[in-house]
Amino acid sequence: MSAPKAFVTQLQVRFGDVDPAGIAYYPKIFELIHLAFEELWDVHVGRRYYHLIREDEIGFPLVHADVNFLSPLRFGDRPVVRVTCFRLGRSSIGLRYVFSVAERECIDARMTVACVELRGLASHETPPEYRARFEEIYREDPA
Amino acid sequence: MSAPKAFVTQLQVRFGDVDPAGIAYYPKIFELIHLAFEELWDVHVGRRYYHLIREDEIGFPLVHADVNFLSPLRFGDRPVVRVTCFRLGRSSIGLRYVFSVAERECIDARMTVACVELRGLASHETPPEYRARFEEIYREDPA
Amino acid sequence: MSAPKAFVTQLQVRFGDVDPAGIAYYPKIFELIHLAFEELWDVHVGRRYYHLIREDEIGFPLVHADVNFLSPLRFGDRPVVRVTCFRLGRSSIGLRYVFSVAERECIDARMTVACVELRGLASHETPPEYRARFEEIYREDPA
Amino acid sequence: MSAPKAFVTQLQVRFGDVDPAGIAYYPKIFELIHLAFEELWDVHVGRRYYHLIREDEIGFPLVHADVNFLSPLRFGDRPVVRVTCFRLGRSSIGLRYVFSVAERECIDARMTVACVELRGLASHETPPEYRARFEEIYREDPA
Repeated sequence: MSAPKAFVTQLQVRFGDVDPAGIAYYPKIFELIHLAFEELWDVHVGRRYYHLIREDEIGFPLVHADVNFLSPLRFGDRPVVRVTCFRLGRSSIGLRYVFSVAERECIDARMTVACVELRGLASHETPPEYRARFEEIYREDPA
Repeated sequence: MSAPKAFVTQLQVRFGDVDPAGIAYYPKIFELIHLAFEELWDVHVGRRYYHLIREDEIGFPLVHADVNFLSPLRFGDRPVVRVTCFRLGRSSIGLRYVFSVAERECIDARMTVACVELRGLASHETPPEYRARFEEIYREDPA
Repeated sequence: MSAPKAFVTQLQVRFGDVDPAGIAYYPKIFELIHLAFEELWDVHVGRRYYHLIREDEIGFPLVHADVNFLSPLRFGDRPVVRVTCFRLGRSSIGLRYVFSVAERECIDARMTVACVELRGLASHETPPEYRARFEEIYREDPA
Repeated sequence: MSAPKAFVTQLQVRFGDVDPAGIAYYPKIFELIHLAFEELWDVHVGRRYYHLIREDEIGFPLVHADVNFLSPLRFGDRPVVRVTCFRLGRSSIGLRYVFSVAERECIDARMTVACVELRGLASHETPPEYRARFEEIYREDPA
């Protein structure tokens, strides 16, 4: 993948993430995706996800997941995760996470979240200062 | 939903499954889906998933997930999960899990797993005695 | 163990609970202990832990854990857990959980929790109707 | 605490680590302790825990935990963890983990692990090249 703009972070597959077959148990892969999402906020958007929840009182629950598991992640792997934005609606954001170990693509996940008010979970427009940061990593989704 | 044949099990959303917003954290929802999958083996297929792994030395890792999160699951909810089969290939099995709390549909998950040998992860034909049990809950996927 | 009064429940070690060495990863053992604690409330005390949190707005966070790991729990094990009370103070409750698989004792955990108000976490007297239920499973701790 | 020799690492309390009351769910605290243990191997001992398991085929399962929960960890906290060794037997190692957020001590955990061969779980002497690294952070336990 030669991508112009993306947020890139590296994670680590820990002892507690793998199953008896030695490969990452898939609920743990979703925890890794959430870790990458929190990193995206903290580092790329520049708003700690913690502050978003506590001070802005908005959140981004998941509404749709479409994930291909291409190759197993194993204990000790240190996947590089490349995050781009494939959809940017009024309140919904589509984020794509591609996990690679060396040249091997392992996970290709399209996760759509929706901005909501934490009290009552009503739909809320994505604040423009955050939206601008997602535009920076936007690209047309070929899929 | 009026379904002719399905495997039905009831789960419980535990204290440790919910996030500060009071709704189930999505990696925990995938743990619940895996619990329903293990119940499907133990109760419907009649082969403990534990024995499948230990004695048959085959497994069913996830290759694709397509999940709609329709309505939040909350602490204390006791969702009923209805499992059907929407695809039955030589080695791949598509299982659909619909979680409902009372009449409210919360999760609609299509999870495709592939039968593999645990050593080496080579593709393996789904053994016919298990395949027959998945046929019983098969139905055309309208989606 | 021949115990006069105890709450007894059976749990199951799931696929996602075990590590690459095939034995239960210890943070998962603490999840099993919390499951037994929730069962204790739901079944023995007769107050759903969910209602305790939501309606009574009190909780029982852990203040001390003293746990012996005597023998490994493995994937597929179905440990029987025997819960007794070894301490009953104004707001603190000491609960002992002994996990056995057949005659083999695997875990011996003494977990001390303290009754608090969820808002502010101030100490709160254990309500007498609940306290009476813990007295039923009380016994002197030989240790 | 003015400690002469300790291994120090900083962790982060993530969204998925906290419960509806907003404080870290204790099984997640044990995952954080295991993270600090893996960091101790990777950074201080200089042997990746992954390689220890895969190549040396030895492991360090937990045999005893004695943990005081002094003050809650909350979503967004970034505790500093100070790890010292309070016991160094032939095959057993006692490690103490003190979690602090600013000047507030939150967790004081004494975790005793035992060196075993992964096949069969027989006791195994701690290899001297690793033992020497634990000696560096050894200090008498006042408790």
